[in-house]
Formats: sequence, C-alpha cells, structure tokens
Amino acid sequence: MRYFDCDKVKTMETVKTIHLTQTVQKGGCAAKVAAVELRKILSQVRMPKAPPELIVGTGTFDDAAIYRVNADVALVQTLDFFTPIVDSPRLFGKIAAANALSDVYAMGGKPATAMAIFAFPLALMEDAIAVEVLQGAAEVIEASGAALVGGHTIDDDTMKFGLSITGFVHPEKVWTNAGARPGDALILTKGLGTGTLTAALKREEATEADIDVGLQSMCQLNDIAGVVSDELLSSIHAATDVTGFGLAGHAFNLARSSQVSLEIEFKALPVLPRALEFLEKEFLTKAHRTNAEYVKTHTRFTDASKVMEQLVYDPQTSGGLLLSVDPSCADELLRALKTRFPMASRIGRAKSPDARALHFQ
Amino acid sequence: MRYFDCDKVKTMETVKTIHLTQTVQKGGCAAKVAAVELRKILSQVRMPKAPPELIVGTGTFDDAAIYRVNADVALVQTLDFFTPIVDSPRLFGKIAAANALSDVYAMGGKPATAMAIFAFPLALMEDAIAVEVLQGAAEVIEASGAALVGGHTIDDDTMKFGLSITGFVHPEKVWTNAGARPGDALILTKGLGTGTLTAALKREEATEADIDVGLQSMCQLNDIAGVVSDELLSSIHAATDVTGFGLAGHAFNLARSSQVSLEIEFKALPVLPRALEFLEKEFLTKAHRTNAEYVKTHTRFTDASKVMEQLVYDPQTSGGLLLSVDPSCADELLRALKTRFPMASRIGRAKSPDARALHFQ
Repeated sequence: MRYFDCDKVKTMETVKTIHLTQTVQKGGCAAKVAAVELRKILSQVRMPKAPPELIVGTGTFDDAAIYRVNADVALVQTLDFFTPIVDSPRLFGKIAAANALSDVYAMGGKPATAMAIFAFPLALMEDAIAVEVLQGAAEVIEASGAALVGGHTIDDDTMKFGLSITGFVHPEKVWTNAGARPGDALILTKGLGTGTLTAALKREEATEADIDVGLQSMCQLNDIAGVVSDELLSSIHAATDVTGFGLAGHAFNLARSSQVSLEIEFKALPVLPRALEFLEKEFLTKAHRTNAEYVKTHTRFTDASKVMEQLVYDPQTSGGLLLSVDPSCADELLRALKTRFPMASRIGRAKSPDARALHFQ
Repeated sequence: MRYFDCDKVKTMETVKTIHLTQTVQKGGCAAKVAAVELRKILSQVRMPKAPPELIVGTGTFDDAAIYRVNADVALVQTLDFFTPIVDSPRLFGKIAAANALSDVYAMGGKPATAMAIFAFPLALMEDAIAVEVLQGAAEVIEASGAALVGGHTIDDDTMKFGLSITGFVHPEKVWTNAGARPGDALILTKGLGTGTLTAALKREEATEADIDVGLQSMCQLNDIAGVVSDELLSSIHAATDVTGFGLAGHAFNLARSSQVSLEIEFKALPVLPRALEFLEKEFLTKAHRTNAEYVKTHTRFTDASKVMEQLVYDPQTSGGLLLSVDPSCADELLRALKTRFPMASRIGRAKSPDARALHFQ
C-alpha cells in the first residue's frame, strides 16, 4: 500500500505518476451519503414551499429537478461531485463530467451549462494536476454540447471534483422515474461493476489498463437521443441513471415512484469485464453494504449467488440509464442503442405493484 | 484552543454546544483558492467553445454566468461553498445561502432554484447538525423566493456547505462588472470586516454575541430590487458582490472589466463593529495576504494606515454589493438602500483608466 508523499508529489513528474486513488482514505470517507441516512436528515428539514414551476422536485428522489420556464422550455438541474475513483487526473475529470451530465440525459434533457465544484489540495499537488482534471471535464462537457460557465474552487485536504449541470427539456417530454407502467420492458444501457473495478484499483489489485473497458464506459455520455429516433424515444415511459445506490437502489426508487414492481433477470445483466472476478474476491465498498440495507426489505431474490447479489448492489459511477419502455418497441430501441452502447441489454420487466418492489431471479 | 472531540460531539447536546469553527483547520486549508493561483490554473485549460447564448462567461471573472434562453429570459448561474466560518450550524447555513444567492443579485437577477453542495463528517457529527445547516439555508432560500430543488451530500473529514443557484434576468437588464463609466459614483451596501470578525471567532477571541452585527449582515440578502424603484435600478451601470477577494480584489476586477480606474475614500468605508480593533490585533487570514498579492501592483494608497489597508483586503463572506451608478442618482439610490441596508455608503468614484486601476485615499 503506497501512501501519499508530499515531497515526491510536488514535481511536474507527478502528473504522470500520481495515483489519485491513493490520495484519499479507504473506507468510504468522502463518499456519497447513504440513501437511508440522507432521507433521515432531509425528512427533518422544513423545506421552502415548492413553486408551481417546479415540475419535479426532491420528493421522488429523481435524478434531477425540472423547473418550467414557459410552455415550451423547462430547466433540468442536477449536481454531483466526489473523490477520485481512478488514478489519472484527466480520466477523473472525464468520468466526473460524464457522471454529472448523465442525470440530465436521464430526464430526457439536453445539457446547456456546467459549473465546476472543485476541492483541490494546493499544498500537496502540483497545479498541473488541477489543470488535467479540468481539461478532462472540459473535453466531455464540450462533447455534450454544453458550456463550462464557471464554478468554485477551494483548497482542501483531499480532492473532490464534480459539476452542477443545467439542461433544457420540453416540459411535456420529461422522463421521470415515476412513469413506468406494468408490462414495460426494462433496458440498461451500460455494463455493471464500476464499484468493484474501482475498489480493485484503489487496493492496487488492478491497474487502469486492467479495467480499461470499465473506464471507457464511465467516460461515455448517456446521450441516447443521439442514436435513437424521436419516435422510439417517445416509447420510453420512465428513465433513471444508475449511480451510487447501485442497480437495486435506483431500480427501487423507480419502482416506488412509478408504483410498480420490477422483475430483473440475473442472466440478462450486462457485466463489465473482470467485475464478477473482483466481486468474488470481495473487493467491496461501504456502499455495497448501505445499498443492500436501503432495499433489502423491498427485494426478493430467487436463485441468487452471493456475487450476483453484490453486483446489483454495486455502486456505479457514471453508470447506464435504466429505461422502462413500451414492450412492443423494446427490441428496436435496443438495436438502436447497441450502435453506441454495446453492452445495452433488456434486463427485465415492470409488473403490477407487489409486496416487494424488486424481484431479482 | 479547543480541538474536536469525537466522543463528546456524538450526542444530541452538541447541536447547541458544538463550535463548528473549531472543527476545521486553521491556516486557510479548505479556503477559497487565491485569485492569482486560480487564474494560473484556468489559463492552462482549453475551455469548450462558448456558445452564442453565453452572454457573460468566465472571461471577465464576473459573479455569475449569464445564458440567454430567449429574447426575454436569461439564466443567471453561480455556485459557492466553503467550510464553517461561524460556530452555530443554523447560522452557517443561513450565511452560506445568503452568500451564494448574492451573486445572482449582483447581476440584477432574481433567484429561482438552489441545489445544495454538502460535505458532512458523518462519523464525527450528529445528524441534527446537518439538519440545522440545511434548515438555516432553507429559510434564507425561502426568503429569497427561490426553491431548494436538490443537491448532493458526501461524507467528508470536514464540513463544507454551499449552493448552486440559478436565477432569471432580462437579457438587456443584466448588470455586469464591465459597465462602470468614468464619473460614476461607487456605493457599497454592507459594512466591511467579516474576515477579521470570523478570524477572531475562530481564535476564540470573540463569541458570536460579540460580532452579532456582522453575523446579521452576513445573513442579509442583497435583494436591493426590493427597496429600489425600477427607475433607480436603471441608474446602476455595473455591480459586483464583495466576497473572498476583498473590496480591493473585487473592485479591481470591476475596474479592469470596465476599463476604468476607481478612487475610494477610506473615511467613507462602512466598517462592521469591532472589525478595526480585530485588524489592529492582527486577527488575519491567509486571504489577507493573497488578496494583497492579487492587486498590489495595480493599487495606489495615499495616507493609508496598516489597518485600513488590511480592511480593503479583508475577505468578505456574504459581503455587500459594490455598485457603480450614475452620479446624479447616487444620493437618491443611497437613501432608498439605507431603508434596508443601514451601513450602505457612497465610497468613491470611477475615473478614466489610469496606470493603477485602484486608488485608496
């Protein structure tokens, strides 16, 4: 286990040699606060009254808020930030940007502006590392068509980076996590396993080269409108992006908001290379446990291996979109998605409400 | 000097007894990155191409970005976050919210949505502290008329809190920091000195009760449109809010963007109670030094005491608006402002460009 060496790091060389994952503590410090904890805190806050313009607020734990500007335009707003999950600064910037932008895509929106949230250890790291993080983010923001319009940077003990994103969507074409209907087919656009892959990287049980497919997946924009016709897009009844709460956590939020239950096939789940091997070796994070706690009383497993259970709890960074779609269009939609998202898969179906919201089999 | 005691803190009592300022390190760690350092980093990043909709971007170091939605509506966007500068959690939430909202007011906008940026030490602090911070922010957001629409919370070693704010403004009624004209009168809406007041608090040389006027000032919204007629508002040629870079730093940005020089009278500067006493005692922050470095080659002082020099470098949190206004309307504007901002003062004037952008006398 290498630790952080200030003197060594403060050289230009370090942009190439620094392993960012070794600069933050193990054990889930500086990680996303678990859903259960967060809900407990938020439930005690008397929130400002929601104005009529707020079409989607915090109530459904959706991916982003929707605020109506006029009959044709609504804002899609979201923010996300976290500590380094990969070693290379530029890669970290790219993943953080793709991850933040994903919430806008998950609502059917098109990103317009981005603002950076940057905590940087000035005393420990060369400026060039900050430049690389921002450059990676700038490249992905540019690819999304959005503009980087500002941000705020503080000096901190450990690095955190993320973005506040605003996009636009037609108020009547918003996808929420509340629109799934019994009978819908479920499609997931990216492979699962980024949590265990990055846990292996942090433990130095894998290099970035070893988990290249997973890293590429995390850099990819969930811009499905780029490869799917408007007609097919209109067959999408609900969407959410799969991130820190794992497939199970985000599927549960979708099931609950839509008042349906979801049946998901283990054998249909797309899995990133080496993810099952690393789960088998128990390269886990705190979130594997808290995600399990979040959904366990609402979930039924049939014929589940321990590894497959961990896979559905695996916290994703810049994970895929989970789409609930008209079943008659699902195959055609999947074919279109596969032209850009090779691991996209039809993973299950929505059903009538059940005692347990999720059934993995 | 008290330090942070985990065991003691993890009780319900602590919401009353915790001194948040003692939970973060001294010495500017987790502080705003200095302007000089930030510009150096940003200058090395190849930014995405700015779209035509971006009326104000990062180029002028203005308070917020302006993005045109249509001929009548533009977004005003900004974000800000920082470590606790006061001891009481609810007060910290209020100040952080007023501070973030201020950038929207500084552009002539009206706040619409807010998203929380929250790093919280789950292992060290009771949930009730997080609730208090959020409650304080929620109250100020509600007073501004905006909605709290989401956010992101991570577990971190030290607390940071802030907001990403979006407001609306008519594209032709935007105040920027680039519109000041020679002959304009300069008005500052709040007293100076929050940097040294909070430094005294952190050193335990003062209690919150001792600096009550300063704390109230930091909680106050810079919503000047609430007390100023539209006609008088149209006499404002440029505005900026005075925050981390101090009066000198933000005045310099305004002077440079507007291509004017600014002449500011020491004797006209509004000063918060006890600020001069604390500056005399050298209750300073790292930002006093970095703010001086930022502007020193552009600034001329005539008859300056050391204390008054430090006052113009004093980093403000939720400071006042610095307005550059038509001189024929300045007195009437000041009278209107004083009904809500008792320390509002006419502090100087804009002049033709000079070898030095700032002259304090």
